[in-house]
Amino acid sequence: MPGSASDAEDFLSSSWMERRRVGYDYTNSLAAMVGEKHGVPYEELERFAKDNQHILEEFHKREEKGEIGFTQLPSTVEYREEVSRFLLKAKGKFDYLVVLGIGGSALGLVALQEALKPEATSPSTPPAGGVFPALYVVDNVDPSLVSSVLNRIDLNRTLINVISKSGATLETLANFLVFRSALIEAVGYQKHSRHIVVTTTLGEGYLFELAQKEGYQLFGIPLNVGGRFSVFSPVGLLPAGLIGIDLMELLAGAQYMKELCHSRPSMKNISFLSAVIQYLLDIRKGKGIQVFFAYSSLLRGLARWYQQLWAESLGKRLNRNGEEVFCGQTPLVSIGTTDQHSLLQLFGEGPNNKSITFLEVSHLPDQLAIEEEPSPHEMTDYLKGKSLQEVLLAERRATELSLTSNARPNTTFILPEISPFTLGELIYLFELQTAYAGELYQINPYDQPGVEEGKRTAYALLGRRGYGEKQKEIEKKMPPKRHII
Amino acid sequence: MPGSASDAEDFLSSSWMERRRVGYDYTNSLAAMVGEKHGVPYEELERFAKDNQHILEEFHKREEKGEIGFTQLPSTVEYREEVSRFLLKAKGKFDYLVVLGIGGSALGLVALQEALKPEATSPSTPPAGGVFPALYVVDNVDPSLVSSVLNRIDLNRTLINVISKSGATLETLANFLVFRSALIEAVGYQKHSRHIVVTTTLGEGYLFELAQKEGYQLFGIPLNVGGRFSVFSPVGLLPAGLIGIDLMELLAGAQYMKELCHSRPSMKNISFLSAVIQYLLDIRKGKGIQVFFAYSSLLRGLARWYQQLWAESLGKRLNRNGEEVFCGQTPLVSIGTTDQHSLLQLFGEGPNNKSITFLEVSHLPDQLAIEEEPSPHEMTDYLKGKSLQEVLLAERRATELSLTSNARPNTTFILPEISPFTLGELIYLFELQTAYAGELYQINPYDQPGVEEGKRTAYALLGRRGYGEKQKEIEKKMPPKRHII
Repeated sequence: MPGSASDAEDFLSSSWMERRRVGYDYTNSLAAMVGEKHGVPYEELERFAKDNQHILEEFHKREEKGEIGFTQLPSTVEYREEVSRFLLKAKGKFDYLVVLGIGGSALGLVALQEALKPEATSPSTPPAGGVFPALYVVDNVDPSLVSSVLNRIDLNRTLINVISKSGATLETLANFLVFRSALIEAVGYQKHSRHIVVTTTLGEGYLFELAQKEGYQLFGIPLNVGGRFSVFSPVGLLPAGLIGIDLMELLAGAQYMKELCHSRPSMKNISFLSAVIQYLLDIRKGKGIQVFFAYSSLLRGLARWYQQLWAESLGKRLNRNGEEVFCGQTPLVSIGTTDQHSLLQLFGEGPNNKSITFLEVSHLPDQLAIEEEPSPHEMTDYLKGKSLQEVLLAERRATELSLTSNARPNTTFILPEISPFTLGELIYLFELQTAYAGELYQINPYDQPGVEEGKRTAYALLGRRGYGEKQKEIEKKMPPKRHII
Repeated sequence: MPGSASDAEDFLSSSWMERRRVGYDYTNSLAAMVGEKHGVPYEELERFAKDNQHILEEFHKREEKGEIGFTQLPSTVEYREEVSRFLLKAKGKFDYLVVLGIGGSALGLVALQEALKPEATSPSTPPAGGVFPALYVVDNVDPSLVSSVLNRIDLNRTLINVISKSGATLETLANFLVFRSALIEAVGYQKHSRHIVVTTTLGEGYLFELAQKEGYQLFGIPLNVGGRFSVFSPVGLLPAGLIGIDLMELLAGAQYMKELCHSRPSMKNISFLSAVIQYLLDIRKGKGIQVFFAYSSLLRGLARWYQQLWAESLGKRLNRNGEEVFCGQTPLVSIGTTDQHSLLQLFGEGPNNKSITFLEVSHLPDQLAIEEEPSPHEMTDYLKGKSLQEVLLAERRATELSLTSNARPNTTFILPEISPFTLGELIYLFELQTAYAGELYQINPYDQPGVEEGKRTAYALLGRRGYGEKQKEIEKKMPPKRHII
């Protein structure tokens, strides 16, 4: 296994800067550990990575030409500056931040907030009182959710950030109309525009037009960046900055990962190699499910963000030589140790159709130690003096060992710590991994044609003008009899 | 299709009591709607249900004999009374309730709390000030989670409910030792026992012994009820009652569903028929993933509870005629409309390996209407006068129609409202469905042998006495080289 031992040594004996770097341990995805039926032989992996080195080179050429939108974001100074100016202006003015957005307009922010500012969604005193506003993300057109938020905030001290790339997302518009009415009732029409910020495609769409008419502050999303790749645009930066996340560190982490992946050959490029491994496990070993198993309660948001990224980018229908092909791994969110008591039984003894991706955090803040045992007992004496962090790490390692011995292929991303820098790295790493995976599957990872049909059907059901034909089509497809018990 | 039209009519023209009943629409799981490749022919379903009627009869006989633990819980007066007495005693004494539990000791409570008392986890003024304490569920041995809870509560006004059936769950014990030390520091050793309630198997285990020694209040879990089937025991009832959930209504709903399922033949028994449909979709149509697609943000906890129930009960390794067989559908949590912008692309155009289970709520509280549009526009004029509830229902229906036209089999549970009664129905319905499914797969749905290996490995890694052999075994299995980049 040429190079492998020194790879590991390189990583483990790395410099200070390197120690902030996310690592990737793919040992247990190899046939040597889980057998040829479920794992990839190292030689096959190396050959495949080498044979597909051209994907990497072509992608980086397109990237350098500026053809790929999301890769430009970490170094786009303009967004950072524009957001910083607004942060200065808004400082201290708001106790509540309400974000109206769904899918790619919400999940990136939630990932950052849960990992870096977990206290932002449940302020210990309302109004937050602190420097930063409390955050409410309204990501569903659910009356219970909307009214619970309306009941908790003082609209006089609230900033509403409505986010929709198209400016026409049905759920976001519906919620916006409700919040806007409530806002006008609370602060009056004259002042209401100071409480609204719109993030959308500049120059087009309903929200853009309305913002121009009403004088709402506007932030742009580049046309060539899709919602799920937009964390490092104002979509993520503005609300993340408002709740106090260090944007410079976040972007520095992303830029660092970009340069790292750009400068490395296929077998050392963490985004590319992890994409290749998932691709091979899916296509050649039948691992149609990827479990994203993050070992910290703080990383549930990140796991959900990744779930969207991987699912929506790669879940595609294709026509290949006249035949319909359906592709895409199904990503499943799992949190350790919590889901060891919920899903691990299935992962270890159910169908061997899963690739497990662990996310391990080497150092968690808040070292809490188990100081004493109430009465000496073999159930607890080995815990005395241990920190919760040690217990958590041992449990993750035990889960990895147990899945490996059951021939379940798994890999581990090693996060040195949870910080804006490492979150920046990780988010960029996964965006790039997904983009590379699109090339491997030979699909377009940036569109989502499959949700259009549902949207048109919803318009028809809600009686939108111009959807009469669709209505008739729906009626024709109705079952002659419904089976309900 | 004999009987089917009148089934639907029965349901739709039902009485007041019946109108609180959960319904099940399985039209779109049938071959008539999604084709024979992906759907079950009605005749095949009917034949299979009839041929397996004996499962139902045998199960109900065992149930009547008291052999099946969980089915006894809704009518066990003893637990209800014991819990009620404690609720009276504890009333007004605590501002915070901390539940230490994991898996089946936490998920049922979270399901109830998120659906019925969403405000309980983010009190608008701390101390809650209201009649009921604020709830913190610590379901991970994560130092960030534990310290964030410790930072938010006043231990002088806190009740800690530690829940573990075995009395020996590693994560729960570790967290308990940390909280206990903090509690003793805050209130003194003399008084600390008034702040701790233990729910565990009476008569055995570490927690039982400790509770006896220290004088902690004890609640029992019957030996023949597993954690994931224990919502209607003190595991769920005690903390749910403390935060103000109506236990009588909850249990009445469960009992109602029990009697309904008990009295009906296979094709009208909602738990049995839904189990049969999932089983046939899995085994005969290759739907190895079941998406639990709940249309309300309030039902995420319920979806996660169901995910554990289905995964841990049915994900089993078997030896059949000398051959290893792995069974179990992989359950995936999805929330509508949120995940239409995250997972729907994959559900509709990715691999056709999923059965979609919708959960629709006919009436959500908090009717919010869209009162006006800022400027008349075709993007918004059809929304004017609509309630958010109408938009939500139209979106669910549109998703159903679009998945059906893509030949993706789906079924819908219809929840008349979100209330303690209907949650009681639903939880019992799914427990029974899972138990029936165990009979269909011919596996034991009540054990979880696959997590034992991981537990022993964790003990060995943490240096517990008596695990020296295991440690050596682990060392032997270590890869000669790790592959880390």
